[in-house]
Parts: sequence; C-alpha cells; structure tokens
Amino acid sequence: MHNRLGGGMAADTAAGEVHFRYLKLAEEIEQKVNMGVYLAGEKLPSIRKLHAQTGLSITTVYQAFIELEKRGIVEARQKSGYYVKPLLHQILPTPKIKRHRAVPKKVTINNLASSIVESMGDPGMLRLGGTVVDPDLLPHKQLMAAVKSIPAARFKDLLTLYENPMGSLVLRRQIAKRTLPISHRAAADDIVITNGCIEAVSLCLQAIAGPGETIVVESPTYPWILQVIEDLGMFALELCTDPETGLDLAAFKKAVDRNRVSGCILIPNFHNPLGFEMPVERKQAVVAFCNDRDIPIIEDDIHGDLYFGRRRPVAMQSFDKKGLVLYCSSFSKTLSPGLRIGWAIPGAFRDQVKRLKLNSSIATTSMGQYLVADFLKSGSYDRHLRTLRSALKNQACNTALAVARYFPQGTCLTAPRGGLTLWLELDAAVDGMQVFHEARKRKIAILPGIMCSTTRKYKNFIRISCGFRWSKKIEKGIAVLGEIVTKLKG
Amino acid sequence: MHNRLGGGMAADTAAGEVHFRYLKLAEEIEQKVNMGVYLAGEKLPSIRKLHAQTGLSITTVYQAFIELEKRGIVEARQKSGYYVKPLLHQILPTPKIKRHRAVPKKVTINNLASSIVESMGDPGMLRLGGTVVDPDLLPHKQLMAAVKSIPAARFKDLLTLYENPMGSLVLRRQIAKRTLPISHRAAADDIVITNGCIEAVSLCLQAIAGPGETIVVESPTYPWILQVIEDLGMFALELCTDPETGLDLAAFKKAVDRNRVSGCILIPNFHNPLGFEMPVERKQAVVAFCNDRDIPIIEDDIHGDLYFGRRRPVAMQSFDKKGLVLYCSSFSKTLSPGLRIGWAIPGAFRDQVKRLKLNSSIATTSMGQYLVADFLKSGSYDRHLRTLRSALKNQACNTALAVARYFPQGTCLTAPRGGLTLWLELDAAVDGMQVFHEARKRKIAILPGIMCSTTRKYKNFIRISCGFRWSKKIEKGIAVLGEIVTKLKG
Repeated sequence: MHNRLGGGMAADTAAGEVHFRYLKLAEEIEQKVNMGVYLAGEKLPSIRKLHAQTGLSITTVYQAFIELEKRGIVEARQKSGYYVKPLLHQILPTPKIKRHRAVPKKVTINNLASSIVESMGDPGMLRLGGTVVDPDLLPHKQLMAAVKSIPAARFKDLLTLYENPMGSLVLRRQIAKRTLPISHRAAADDIVITNGCIEAVSLCLQAIAGPGETIVVESPTYPWILQVIEDLGMFALELCTDPETGLDLAAFKKAVDRNRVSGCILIPNFHNPLGFEMPVERKQAVVAFCNDRDIPIIEDDIHGDLYFGRRRPVAMQSFDKKGLVLYCSSFSKTLSPGLRIGWAIPGAFRDQVKRLKLNSSIATTSMGQYLVADFLKSGSYDRHLRTLRSALKNQACNTALAVARYFPQGTCLTAPRGGLTLWLELDAAVDGMQVFHEARKRKIAILPGIMCSTTRKYKNFIRISCGFRWSKKIEKGIAVLGEIVTKLKG
Repeated sequence: MHNRLGGGMAADTAAGEVHFRYLKLAEEIEQKVNMGVYLAGEKLPSIRKLHAQTGLSITTVYQAFIELEKRGIVEARQKSGYYVKPLLHQILPTPKIKRHRAVPKKVTINNLASSIVESMGDPGMLRLGGTVVDPDLLPHKQLMAAVKSIPAARFKDLLTLYENPMGSLVLRRQIAKRTLPISHRAAADDIVITNGCIEAVSLCLQAIAGPGETIVVESPTYPWILQVIEDLGMFALELCTDPETGLDLAAFKKAVDRNRVSGCILIPNFHNPLGFEMPVERKQAVVAFCNDRDIPIIEDDIHGDLYFGRRRPVAMQSFDKKGLVLYCSSFSKTLSPGLRIGWAIPGAFRDQVKRLKLNSSIATTSMGQYLVADFLKSGSYDRHLRTLRSALKNQACNTALAVARYFPQGTCLTAPRGGLTLWLELDAAVDGMQVFHEARKRKIAILPGIMCSTTRKYKNFIRISCGFRWSKKIEKGIAVLGEIVTKLKG
C-alpha cells in the first residue's frame, strides 16, 4: 500500500525545519490527519491533554495548532477547541481534462447500466457505487412523525383524489419560496412536480427535442442522462469538460457551429461525477450564448443545496432571459429517495412539460408531496441541510484521504466542491470495468468510468460515492479497492 | 323533458293485462324504478307495508314481487326482502357500430385534452367527466390505519432507500397471487410496478414500438391511450369496435394485411368508454392471430376487477403463448388514485420495460407500494371489491335510468358490463363539444366523444362517468345535461 500525498502541505515543510518543537508536533498531527487517525470533522485532543501527553509546554502546543490552522489543516471553534478541517483540494492531483473530437454519438450504455445498477442496489454490498445518502443522515424520524399526524380528512383526500398533474399547490408554493438563487421568475405556477429529478430531466428533454436530434452533454456526465438520451433515440454530443470549472465555452461554440444542436443537459453545480462548480461568469456566458442561439438548456441542479463552501451557488436559470433554461431538481438527495419527489421549472416549455407529465403518469403521488411540503413548511429544512452538508463534506474528505493512502502512486482525484462523488483517474493500464468486477467479488460497489460517456475515454476511471457515513468498514473497502487497482496495474 | 324507456319490460306488458291486481302493482313499482323513485340497489317496502299502504292482500303483493322478480326488476335477498336489481341492458338502445376506413392517423388531441382534463379536475364541478371512483367507496380508513402502524424501522427504509426499479418484492408477490384469471405464467419477477396504469401502458408502448410506427386501437378508445401515442410520435390505426363485443377480428386482419402494424393497445374488459366485455372466444382468437403474426398486444385491464356479472373475466394474456401480450393494470380505481400504483406484466418485453422504468423515474414511490401490499396481505381486498362492484353497478344503473328519463328521444346508450362509464349517442345534429361547453357553464364535467378518437366520427357522442355515489345532485346534473342536449337538438 502506498501512502502518498501529492502537493500537500506536508511536502512544503522541509525536513530541516522540524527542529522547532511546535513544528514537529504540527507535522505529526498533520500526518495523523493524512493517515486517517484524526478524521475530517473530528475534534483534536485539547491543548491541555496534548501538553500532558507530550510533555511539551502549553505555548508550544498552542503554536502547533496555530501552525496547523495556517496550513488549513484544522479550524478553531469558539469555546470548543480545534477540529480537523475537511480539506478537499491538494489531496491528490486533479485529473487533467480529456480532449476528444466532439461528434454526436448514438448512446448504447443501457445494457451495461442495468447490470451495474443491480449490483449497486444490492444491500449486501459496500455501497460506494450509487449516489445514495446515508439513511441516518436523512430526517426520517421527522417525516414519520409527520405521517402519523396527518389529519383523517386530509389523508382521505391524499389517497382518494387524483393530484393536480402539475403537483400539489402547497408543495409548489414551498418550492417557489426557495428559488431565489435559482430563478427570479419561478412562481408556484411555473413548477411541475415529478417522480424524482430524472423524470424531470426526461420530460424536459422530450419537450425540447425529438428522436434523432442531438443533445450536448458534459464529458464525463451522469450515466442516467445518457440512458435517457438513448431511450429517447437522441444523439449525445459530449463536450470537453474541465474537472475544476466545467464545460469549455469555446468548444461548445465550435460544436454548435458544426452541428445542429437541439439542446443541452448540463450539471453546473457539483457535477456528477466531477464535483466542480461552474464559475458564475461561465454560467452567465453559457446562458447568454444559448439564449442568443435559441438553444434550450436543461439544468440538472440536484446537488445544488449540497455545497461544501459558504454559499449556495446560483443556478443558470437565474441568467435566463428567454425561458430557455429548464431547471430540474429533487429532494431525493436531501430528504428521501423513497418518496420520489422532484420538480422542473421548465421556463417557456412549461405547458409541454405539464402535458407530458399528465400523459405519462397523470400526477406524482400525493402522499410524498404532502410530506415534503409539510417538512418545508416546518422550517426544519435549512437546519437539516446544514447538518447534512457538514457530514457530506467530512465524508468526501475522509474518503479522498483514504484514496490517497491506499491507492497506488499516480492516481488522480477530483476535489469536489459539493455533492456526493469522487472521480478517480487510475493508471492508464488499469481497466475500470475490471476494477468493478473484482470489487464486486469482494462485495464492494463502484461505478466504472465508461458509464459516464459514450466514448471509451474513461476506461481507466472510476467513480466513488461518499454518501455514507465514514466508518472503518468504508476505510477497509477503500483499502481493498486500492489493493485491486495496485494488482491490476501489475 | 321526455321520459322514454325503449324496449323495456314496461312496454312488453300490454295495457289490457293490467286488470290483474298483482300485475297492476308490479307495473306501478316497475315504473317507479324507471323513474328513479326506487333506486338500483335499494330495498323495496316490505310485503306487510305495501299490504297496509295499498289495502291489497298479502298474497297479491307477494305475487307482484314474484312477477317483478321474473321480469328481472327486483331480487329477493334471504331474510332481508326485495331489492331493486341494477339492470343495465334494455334501458335504451345500444349505439350502433360506426364503420370507417381504417388508416393510420397522426394523433392531435393533446391540446384539446389538457383543457378538458382541467375542467374535469375542478372540485367545484359535478364530476361526470373523469373515471374517478367516489372517495367514500375507497378504503381510506383502513389505509390510514395501515400508515399509522408502520414500524419505525420499516418506515426508515421506505423513506431513505431507493426502491427496486421493478418495484417492491412484497407487492409483486401479492399481485402475482391474484393473476390466476390473468396469466398462468406471471410470477413476482415478471411484474414491474409503475406510477399508475398509464405509465405501464406508456412504458410497454415504448418497449414494442418507436416513433413513426403504427399502433392499432379500438374506436372509440380511452383518450389517454391516444395521447400517449401522440407523445411518442406514433400513428394510431383505429378499428371498428362493436359496442357490445369489441374489436372486429375480420377488420383487424384486413388492417394488418394492409398496414405495417407494430402492435395494438386493447381494453378487452369493461372497455372505456364502451363498457363491453370481449367474449372469451374473441379474446382467444385475437391473441392467436397476433401470436401468429408476431404482433404484440398491450392489454389495458384497469377495470378487470370491476365486473357487474358473476365472474371476473379472463385476460387476453392468459391465452398468450409467445410472451407477446403486455398486461397493464393499477389500483387507482379500486384502492387509491392518489398513491399512483400500477403494474405491467410485460411478457417477453420484461427487460425492456424494466429498463425504461429505471431510466425514466428510477422506481415507483416505496410508501404507496408498501400500503397496497399491506392491504392485499390483510385479505380485505376481495371483500372490499365485492362492496365496490355492487355500488358501481347500482350507480351505473341509476345513471342510465336517469339518462333514459331526462334525455331526448333517440338517445342511444351502452349497457356496460363493468367499469365506470356510459357512452351516449346523441342526435346527429348535437355537437358533443357544445354539450361539454354548455355543461361546463352549469358546473358539470363530461367527456366529449371526439376525445376518444382521431377521427371526427364521435362528434355527437359523450361519455358520462358513474364513479360517484348516486345522489339527488347527480340526478339534477343528468337532468341539466338532458335539457342542454334537448336545446341543442333544436
């Protein structure tokens, strides 16, 4: 097992400097953080305790903490002590952007997909495959209490009436209240409730394009997007996408000039699998360009609320002047995947999406809509999101650190700005599908990179999800993956 | 207002015979039944009471009841008395089969549909438009009790896990246990749970055909089927359909010889809007023919359990030898429209339907599946269905009798064998759309016949639903409709 930290702070401190006692202590603590002894989000021993344990003076220990704070390894919390900061950049080098010739391609990943999805859903597996949030991080107790206190008359209505095809007005109003960083125009009547985000994307896609038409997507992208494109008989035009900033606008313009593009599906916030946040200026520029060319954008913002930074990023829809951005999201990653409640704000395509929704399944189930609306009304959602975000950030960081510890030298890794996924570039000789199969035998689910593209260029990539609470079991799983990859590297 | 009963028993008894006292009494009671004084399903006054009221001897009153029983007007229930029998045939003449040249047509009813659906969903309207079952006829109290007693651990799973894309295994097992008259091969693993029946139909249709291909449907047919065909860019080939026995096999064979047909969507049991039950031999013959020509049949059996006769009719799938019948149904008419739980038994197309389900919305909501499975397991479903069927039969009968009372002479009416709908042929001069608009102004929702076809041949037809409990309000609504039609007839 290699234990390599590329470009990290540890490397910056030359061995010669470690004759200062406080620096030596700081060095040791940092190493323990990198080795997963102290986990992201965990409290470090107090100054007094370290003083007692090490025999170093209070001042020296204090100086060590100041040094660690400077290095960005720990953060002080008032009246509580020093905590390990979840630090996602600089753990391993980020994969480089992969260039390829952008041509529309027929998608044919579906058959591969279903066998992979099956293994991801197997409860006996260590689930690093799907982007699923740990059940213990979701407010199921509150939702259960809400169910049990539904008044009888309300319950009768929920069960015995067909819901409005656009969705419950109460829920749409609650969603509309939360759309400030997303869209300045979204009222309840602009929103269509769907069976999760992927139905929203699928309905929006049917609204903007027909079979045989070409849709621009990021490369790599979320496999489900490719599957929906495949099912609808459309072509995917994959564009080079920077793992740190997203879609390359110049490449996009060129592609639009060369191809007849009917629309695009983008994930600008906490991209799956790359984890980037598209910079505001880029969002604005992409929307302006698409508005200018009348190209609709389907914006998948399912992870928008799961930011690791200080602020919720804006959505592309907020820059839209023509109603050509169709926004899609869901509560599957933040409240409950089982309830299947997502929504679309389809802009100018509202009537088409509404009609498609009505015709394909009449309406979304009433009970789920009631529960989500009830939770939003209770005011607990923002508090819940704060806790959830902090947990996800720590999990992502601990997973990344474990990858750095257990994977062979040369592994590259994204530093996600939010969301649930890490994207790993393995040695060129390693086949992600083989990693998938070997891992499956060892009861670990991951996603092979080829699922995220119509090309074969992510053959040596894998995606690891960080939705579950960090545990010894997950650490062991990452270690096994590292072993498998090392062996395949040969 | 005309009060005309065509071909009924009343007409069979010549006036000359009414000198027998018991016959005179029987005659009077029958007329009261036809006038809606005694409603289908209602108990008649006891023999003693009638003896006291009329001064006729006990023997005479008893003879009158025997006569009414012979005529099929009443039925004796042991130790309880005589009840008005819901009698659906012979109330008004059945509409004749409408012939037309069978050519594939592009469907374009969607825009009309959404405005009509909107008015049907308006809670302020008298809802004779949609095929909705009266909330008071659905077991919402039992379902509510079930929700409130879900164990916490189970609830956590329901909320926080992604359900199996094929649906909950417990529910699929329960459905599989009920498939005896439907399919001899359907095990849990052959079933895919969907968001209601229409999603099942839509997924099955996507599995068997692509855009531009031709699908055979009955004429008239359920509007939603046409809308799904329209949304998927397919063509509908409407075939002449007998209001009493269904699809004309000879016409079907001819159409298949003349056109490239990719599949068909049929509603053999309690067709919407016609209400017929396709005879067993016809079902068998249609399946044999389609098996022979490798033409898949999507069988919409949503009303299969809502029979007015003695026995649940068999499904076409039970005759299928090649896995080419894709069976679709749901619990929306029998348990809860709000839960949105339907299913498909897609035969040889199982993997495609499963994949399409996975890709379009991942899975159906877990909670609804749990509740339906729980209800089926409780053993209450068959008992509930018995009560429901009896209520629906009475409602259909009372509505039909009211149509006979309040609609102008010349009106024709189907005699449904099950389900929720009556299909009315009005005078050729009356436009169903105008009836729809006038009725809407009077706060009554109905479905204009043109919605059920790609042709204009049902211009003077309307569909009236009988899902709601018979009431003075509904009677008044039917009277208003009769008034509107009489006026439009001019």
